[in-house]
Amino acid sequence: MTLILSNDDVETLLTMRECIAVMEEAYAELAEGRGVSRTRSDCFTPTTRGDALYSLKSMDGVAPSLGVGAVRINSDIITWPKRGNAMRREKIAAAPNNRYVGLVLLFSVENGEPLAILPDGVMQRMRVGAANGIAIKHLARTNANCIGLLGSGWQAGAQVMAACAVREVTSVRCFSPNPKSRAAFSDAMSALLGIEVTAVALPEDATKGVDIVMCATNSIDPVFFERWIEPGMHLSSIKRPEIEINAIKRADRVVIHWNDPAPIHVATKGAVIEEKAQGRGWRLAEEIDFDKLPTLPQLVVGRTQGRRSDADVTCFINNIGLGYQFAAAGALVYRKAKERGLGYELPTDWFTEDVHP
Amino acid sequence: MTLILSNDDVETLLTMRECIAVMEEAYAELAEGRGVSRTRSDCFTPTTRGDALYSLKSMDGVAPSLGVGAVRINSDIITWPKRGNAMRREKIAAAPNNRYVGLVLLFSVENGEPLAILPDGVMQRMRVGAANGIAIKHLARTNANCIGLLGSGWQAGAQVMAACAVREVTSVRCFSPNPKSRAAFSDAMSALLGIEVTAVALPEDATKGVDIVMCATNSIDPVFFERWIEPGMHLSSIKRPEIEINAIKRADRVVIHWNDPAPIHVATKGAVIEEKAQGRGWRLAEEIDFDKLPTLPQLVVGRTQGRRSDADVTCFINNIGLGYQFAAAGALVYRKAKERGLGYELPTDWFTEDVHP
Repeated sequence: MTLILSNDDVETLLTMRECIAVMEEAYAELAEGRGVSRTRSDCFTPTTRGDALYSLKSMDGVAPSLGVGAVRINSDIITWPKRGNAMRREKIAAAPNNRYVGLVLLFSVENGEPLAILPDGVMQRMRVGAANGIAIKHLARTNANCIGLLGSGWQAGAQVMAACAVREVTSVRCFSPNPKSRAAFSDAMSALLGIEVTAVALPEDATKGVDIVMCATNSIDPVFFERWIEPGMHLSSIKRPEIEINAIKRADRVVIHWNDPAPIHVATKGAVIEEKAQGRGWRLAEEIDFDKLPTLPQLVVGRTQGRRSDADVTCFINNIGLGYQFAAAGALVYRKAKERGLGYELPTDWFTEDVHP
Repeated sequence: MTLILSNDDVETLLTMRECIAVMEEAYAELAEGRGVSRTRSDCFTPTTRGDALYSLKSMDGVAPSLGVGAVRINSDIITWPKRGNAMRREKIAAAPNNRYVGLVLLFSVENGEPLAILPDGVMQRMRVGAANGIAIKHLARTNANCIGLLGSGWQAGAQVMAACAVREVTSVRCFSPNPKSRAAFSDAMSALLGIEVTAVALPEDATKGVDIVMCATNSIDPVFFERWIEPGMHLSSIKRPEIEINAIKRADRVVIHWNDPAPIHVATKGAVIEEKAQGRGWRLAEEIDFDKLPTLPQLVVGRTQGRRSDADVTCFINNIGLGYQFAAAGALVYRKAKERGLGYELPTDWFTEDVHP
């Protein structure tokens, strides 16, 4: 039977500690050249909704020791509104019942069969969190316990969860531009994690004197600047443009997630908004040779050095997401779903065929 | 509701004439830079089945005027046995009930929603047939009516159907190495198409004196040779290595399907069999600059010249498959399935989400 799982199922099954453990195992396999990851691709075309574009994004990965291959697909209606000084990339919940469309399909490496189909939302933030958490584990000071958080959205929650899974975090100071959002987020996270999460009114209030700065925004412009760096800090970002280029250059040790080439980008002529947005995001690449930076999988297997002293400024940039992460987290979720009998079962024959394709 | 369709549904809904019509419309959109196609990717890892490899293949495309984006996924166990003098690439039906795994997911460009999920088998051969049929329409002599067919498998059937949809075909001579296969194929196609399909014992018996030679094999070595070329012939191939390099060079006019870069190929270290096989297949690229050859979409919109005289030897090489073809054929199948009420309906909410992914 092929399982149809929900975000609620994934929320129940996928703990941050287990997600970090399975991903660390999978990163080792990736570093050794056994795991396989196919770089993300984005297709863009116009829609009939004004400036909004249609985006069909996909990424694949296979973790052979976990026995799972994954394809992650996003079918999005995207806009690029300006909020304050920053340009944001926003998805419109345009599908029926005002919903988003992101799917993960899991396949067996042993016989090819489709194991499960599930929405990507919960898994997606857990795997981003896990990656930045693994980086903290290997790069931040062992006694780091105070976090400055920029952002209060869906991703920000998983970032804090991940930090708490690898360090004895005692306090988090959270800034985001919307006072209501940061207050609601701080209350919710305090309750969830049993630690002090405080909303602050300025980004500097969040970052000053902390051990770890975590950026977790939708911004395609920098939100953390060189002038805020303090000795011994670990800087963490979930996307390329969040940390100012000079701040990255100032860090003693910079590790990226993975040195894939830039995503494959195919767009209708005239789909210029995205190209402009991408241009801002990727402009960094002109100043820093990302291909030459060490990667998280290399760090996990000790093939690149981590922090060398308590005064070192370390920096992890989650520069690109990998379909491979969905294979790893998906293998864990699938195994636990089977054990607990969660999900709808559909006949596997619906998703297989007797003709040679 | 999201539709789950079967190969039987697609067989019922997708006629070759309609498939050719919608694909020709879609190729025009691709040539104009409105349609968008993401090159195929192949991920390979070892399995526990000896020399067999696991392959996770995907390709995407969006046809905005048809309102559909498609992702096509193959999750295969693959071997490379030698048959006679040729090395073949064979998929093992390893999924439960001895089945193959190929899926097409269709999405709406207007709101992103998942429209349908279906096996790829029938659609896959119909779109290959349609592409080679469109090439015949634009390249073969208008009075071409006699076909020599090399191959008697699943693809070969669609090739003949496509030729019959664009030319007044009166006879087909079919060679394939297995006498039983070619006889069974010829009987079945005679009955299906109401034309004379004859099995022959040598490849030269199939190709001698015909107007169109169609190669439709699994071979990764050449099966059609320069010495068999006759003036006015149209040569048709469903994959790159089938036509000998010197035969391609000899043709007056060569058109390829699409000038994508080579597929993205990511493999576990040691997954050498596929690399070797690919090496044989792609070696052609060293002698012919495929990037510079005109493409089928350009031919469809008249941006490149077709046949110039009855004596011209023309050649079409279906060098790479496109996810875009599944968007075009998928749009047609989905519309007809809705009209006729075919397929299982599943709640679209199962494949969408309320969290921002």
